[in-house]
Amino acid sequence: MGMTDRLRLGLIGYGYWGPNLARNFHQLPEAALVACADMDAGRLNEVGRLYPSLKQLATDARALIENPTLDALVIATPARTHFALVKQALEAGKHVLVEKPLAMSSGEARTLIECAREQRRVLMVGHTFEYNPAVWKIRELIQEGALGKLYYFYSNRVNLGRVQTDVNALWSIAPHDISILLYLMNQMPETVAARGVSYVSQGVEDVIFALLTFPENVNAHIHASWLDPSKTRQMTIVGSEKMVVYDDVDPEAKLKIYDKGVYRRGDAFGEFQLRVHSGDIYIPKIDLTEPLRYECAHFLECVRENKPPRTDGENGLRVVRVLEAAQASLHQNGATLPVA
Amino acid sequence: MGMTDRLRLGLIGYGYWGPNLARNFHQLPEAALVACADMDAGRLNEVGRLYPSLKQLATDARALIENPTLDALVIATPARTHFALVKQALEAGKHVLVEKPLAMSSGEARTLIECAREQRRVLMVGHTFEYNPAVWKIRELIQEGALGKLYYFYSNRVNLGRVQTDVNALWSIAPHDISILLYLMNQMPETVAARGVSYVSQGVEDVIFALLTFPENVNAHIHASWLDPSKTRQMTIVGSEKMVVYDDVDPEAKLKIYDKGVYRRGDAFGEFQLRVHSGDIYIPKIDLTEPLRYECAHFLECVRENKPPRTDGENGLRVVRVLEAAQASLHQNGATLPVA
Amino acid sequence: MGMTDRLRLGLIGYGYWGPNLARNFHQLPEAALVACADMDAGRLNEVGRLYPSLKQLATDARALIENPTLDALVIATPARTHFALVKQALEAGKHVLVEKPLAMSSGEARTLIECAREQRRVLMVGHTFEYNPAVWKIRELIQEGALGKLYYFYSNRVNLGRVQTDVNALWSIAPHDISILLYLMNQMPETVAARGVSYVSQGVEDVIFALLTFPENVNAHIHASWLDPSKTRQMTIVGSEKMVVYDDVDPEAKLKIYDKGVYRRGDAFGEFQLRVHSGDIYIPKIDLTEPLRYECAHFLECVRENKPPRTDGENGLRVVRVLEAAQASLHQNGATLPVA
Amino acid sequence: MGMTDRLRLGLIGYGYWGPNLARNFHQLPEAALVACADMDAGRLNEVGRLYPSLKQLATDARALIENPTLDALVIATPARTHFALVKQALEAGKHVLVEKPLAMSSGEARTLIECAREQRRVLMVGHTFEYNPAVWKIRELIQEGALGKLYYFYSNRVNLGRVQTDVNALWSIAPHDISILLYLMNQMPETVAARGVSYVSQGVEDVIFALLTFPENVNAHIHASWLDPSKTRQMTIVGSEKMVVYDDVDPEAKLKIYDKGVYRRGDAFGEFQLRVHSGDIYIPKIDLTEPLRYECAHFLECVRENKPPRTDGENGLRVVRVLEAAQASLHQNGATLPVA
Repeated sequence: MGMTDRLRLGLIGYGYWGPNLARNFHQLPEAALVACADMDAGRLNEVGRLYPSLKQLATDARALIENPTLDALVIATPARTHFALVKQALEAGKHVLVEKPLAMSSGEARTLIECAREQRRVLMVGHTFEYNPAVWKIRELIQEGALGKLYYFYSNRVNLGRVQTDVNALWSIAPHDISILLYLMNQMPETVAARGVSYVSQGVEDVIFALLTFPENVNAHIHASWLDPSKTRQMTIVGSEKMVVYDDVDPEAKLKIYDKGVYRRGDAFGEFQLRVHSGDIYIPKIDLTEPLRYECAHFLECVRENKPPRTDGENGLRVVRVLEAAQASLHQNGATLPVA
Repeated sequence: MGMTDRLRLGLIGYGYWGPNLARNFHQLPEAALVACADMDAGRLNEVGRLYPSLKQLATDARALIENPTLDALVIATPARTHFALVKQALEAGKHVLVEKPLAMSSGEARTLIECAREQRRVLMVGHTFEYNPAVWKIRELIQEGALGKLYYFYSNRVNLGRVQTDVNALWSIAPHDISILLYLMNQMPETVAARGVSYVSQGVEDVIFALLTFPENVNAHIHASWLDPSKTRQMTIVGSEKMVVYDDVDPEAKLKIYDKGVYRRGDAFGEFQLRVHSGDIYIPKIDLTEPLRYECAHFLECVRENKPPRTDGENGLRVVRVLEAAQASLHQNGATLPVA
Repeated sequence: MGMTDRLRLGLIGYGYWGPNLARNFHQLPEAALVACADMDAGRLNEVGRLYPSLKQLATDARALIENPTLDALVIATPARTHFALVKQALEAGKHVLVEKPLAMSSGEARTLIECAREQRRVLMVGHTFEYNPAVWKIRELIQEGALGKLYYFYSNRVNLGRVQTDVNALWSIAPHDISILLYLMNQMPETVAARGVSYVSQGVEDVIFALLTFPENVNAHIHASWLDPSKTRQMTIVGSEKMVVYDDVDPEAKLKIYDKGVYRRGDAFGEFQLRVHSGDIYIPKIDLTEPLRYECAHFLECVRENKPPRTDGENGLRVVRVLEAAQASLHQNGATLPVA
Repeated sequence: MGMTDRLRLGLIGYGYWGPNLARNFHQLPEAALVACADMDAGRLNEVGRLYPSLKQLATDARALIENPTLDALVIATPARTHFALVKQALEAGKHVLVEKPLAMSSGEARTLIECAREQRRVLMVGHTFEYNPAVWKIRELIQEGALGKLYYFYSNRVNLGRVQTDVNALWSIAPHDISILLYLMNQMPETVAARGVSYVSQGVEDVIFALLTFPENVNAHIHASWLDPSKTRQMTIVGSEKMVVYDDVDPEAKLKIYDKGVYRRGDAFGEFQLRVHSGDIYIPKIDLTEPLRYECAHFLECVRENKPPRTDGENGLRVVRVLEAAQASLHQNGATLPVA
């Protein structure tokens, strides 16, 4: 593939996550990363040195948005800036990949979806776990019924360090869990209840606990925090026949599938009996390709073939709707609220 | 110590936990385990074979309560039977060690405390974690201020197998967490909010999530369940200066003390700055003596010296009050309720 | 089973391992533990208190050997005393279960085998890993060819604490590895080479490394030491098709079976190609019954039914022959020696 | 730093390790990676795409050696090619960083040292663990005597996959262990004994066990293999006062320092007593910067400042001398041989 056939990309935001996007797009032969914007001149300098292919370095995102030679923009800026930047980019005719969350309200998200539709441009949200082979495997297990009747999920996504002062742990961390859960369940939760506590910065919850209730009494509990001694990205899925522990930071055993379960069974006399079984554990081999690479490749493919991404605007909107309901619950002291 | 000087004990209930009590009292030279009651003749047969010192084996607990040669009774029966058995035992003039929870309501618990006072008998509740050297060490760290400003606790106490059909996971599992938390905080929570879900038996919550709020914005989250692939007994304590992970099933590293923290500090210009530090980890050597042994020895000592146990009736009542408020919250869909 | 039908046992040695034997035989309804000897009066006192069924407590083993009412003796004394005690016990007409190693030389071991044959008594050696369900499972995998061509074993059996001053780590620790290896391979090694180093007591090797070579280029490396920070009991088995890690101290994953391997394969053109595969991991459920319980029950069964134990004198002799060759190699600076 | 001030580097070999060198030098502002050679045109294509700064891509290393605009060459080719390539590069006036081992014999290594001296060029060997902060910390502990009397080291460096058919596991894997040991001990071993076994390719040992004996009865055992189910890079250091486990693949606890030990102490009566202690565990915070980055930066600094590298030719020679003696021992069936 010649240089001229490659999609010309600009990256807006080279902070925490931007370097990962830059690295992945740089490695993909289908893309040419030719422009980058960041408000910090030091960061710009750094990215320019690492990627000599960058022709345009700007401290103002507008410079990239207005550059007519760019096909697509990748936006990795703070959450509160997503709406305005994505809107401008789409209106300037760019395809857009934006980091999660898509926007800070469902109203904003709908506006962006509408805008992408009008402009006939690809709008994709960086829900990276939907490009993770371990998550694919769990979905496969659920869909083929291997876990039996689904009981509940619980997720622990905590670590120390990335303390935010603008958005809380719900909007910063929990989008990952919500995106995974919607993907695995293939439906929306009926209700959400969430609680959070601020320790470091007043009004910004450092720790949140949320409970999502799906149809048929399937529940999912999320614990997200940036005040924790250890980096943990663990989700447990409990079914009546099998249980799965998904530990995203364990390279050898990302998934452990336990042949364990409890269920009630009616016997010949109309009585119910409890059956508990506990058997082998199975650790399937999981493709260890970086999920972000699949995500980036998928974006390029969607732009090239003009097809809707798996994590399109509608997908991003669904996550925002759950976040929005959870945020309302936070403000109402943990009330159980319907997902609008 | 001669046989005649030893405290003469009867054990009521030789089911799941009774064997541990029997084994520990048998190993303590100050006690003579001479009687046992269990409704199941097979269990009685078994205990009689293992402990030839048992002179009395009965399927009816009354036989032990009415045996005038017994000094004390150890009660390890289902939670709903505690109140009646403890009351009868105290009224018959026996000292009593009863498994947690003390009773199923604070009213019952108060009646038992009053009864013990009138009979001048020792009433002790088997809150075994208050006899656990790892828990002692955490209390020491908190009391000397080593953790800085306390932020929050979270506890995960789950496993597969002991599915109950009479009491829910709150009354069956969470008494451990509540007892540990009250001991560590040395005060009562102001409010409790709890949610639970039943999967296996209608009306009996298999999984519960509870949030306790203590004064000065210290919070504690409890996740208890008997539907889980792995046995987990883990509590994390997050402070502004240090963080502790207490893993009760890790023999080499029961406690990990992380020199990690985040806090805000005012600078000379009246501005606030975030400080994040992340340093060494320290694993203190913890006495691995079985906590139940300390508990049993403490009971014998209290009876002998006529002194109030550390986990006396009042202690047991405090745990029941928290359970009671949590149960009310469960019924009110997770409402935040004061601990009466 | 009445008291009178039960086998009457005496235990000689209530030091490190004796308590485990006492506990297990006490729990087995087919046995009556009625006598115990130990040179230390304090230990005797302790065992007498814990097991009121003991009718005879003696500081001299001869008292038990000469007690005509005992059917069998269980010997858990220091290795150097095994030969004399077992010999006397057999000559006194007792069945014998003796801890490993059977004796300190193959000559002694042969004498004991001969003695048992003449007296028509059961002689069993406590090679407890041959009663371990995890080891049974490995043997099954090997025998059904699931691992492909066997390449090599390596074992790490180390910990801190039980520093010996009479026998070295070879005779104290490595009998376990050797017993496991002979059982798994179902044949003797052709040669042994061993090296060891003394750090704490002159002339007593605290650390040993040994290499056993079996037919068809199967090798086994043993590292045994009592100078180590962590308790480790791990053996890895490497085959051309599958590999197994056996971690005896991991309760959840005693065996991990890796679908991994490397082999050479001839192709259609007479060329050889290297095939490397790396797939799933499988953790079979392993029966967690204490292996010593199976061992003790097997001894009782062999005495009762007058049949040769799985770990009979011949089995014990084979282990001693390997130890003997390894000890000779130690003295010859690691020379490769045939197993006589 | 302008482009013109930067050291102009060529990389020979873009196979397994080359990409890591390319990435690290690319990230260092003091270097300009301008040329790369690899016999595989596909690899050349790949590296050219990832690093547009590369002006010269060649399938023949000679092209780089003869390029007068290059200041230094980084050689990451198979071990058997090191000698010829390094010699040519030095003779062409290039500074050289070569992967371990420096050469396949001490004669060759000496020739290269001499050549570098004559040409007044920097010759550095990529013994990357000598740039590893965890290893620095262990050396610090040893040098300040914190471990007490050193007893022994043992190292397990195994994994599956990089099966070699030209050099054996001794020359391919063990150079790491030897380099670490010489660095930690700051002296040469007196003798070496090694055994190895070939399973996959005749005459190429896949598995090796080696024992190095240092003065004062300090020993070090090395187990290296590429036939193993798990990637392990673990070294244990046992002293009379403290013990250290160095696990290079554990991100949270690279070093565990155990306050454990055993030693003999003379008492007032001239008797010796064994003291065993077992206390806390301490996990120091270790700088997680990639050691290769420190290594690459060190090479640049040495070239710029014309100073001898820490892992200079003499250092590389010492490792080769140990390898050479171990190889001779392999051929003599594990004989104990002096390190010449």
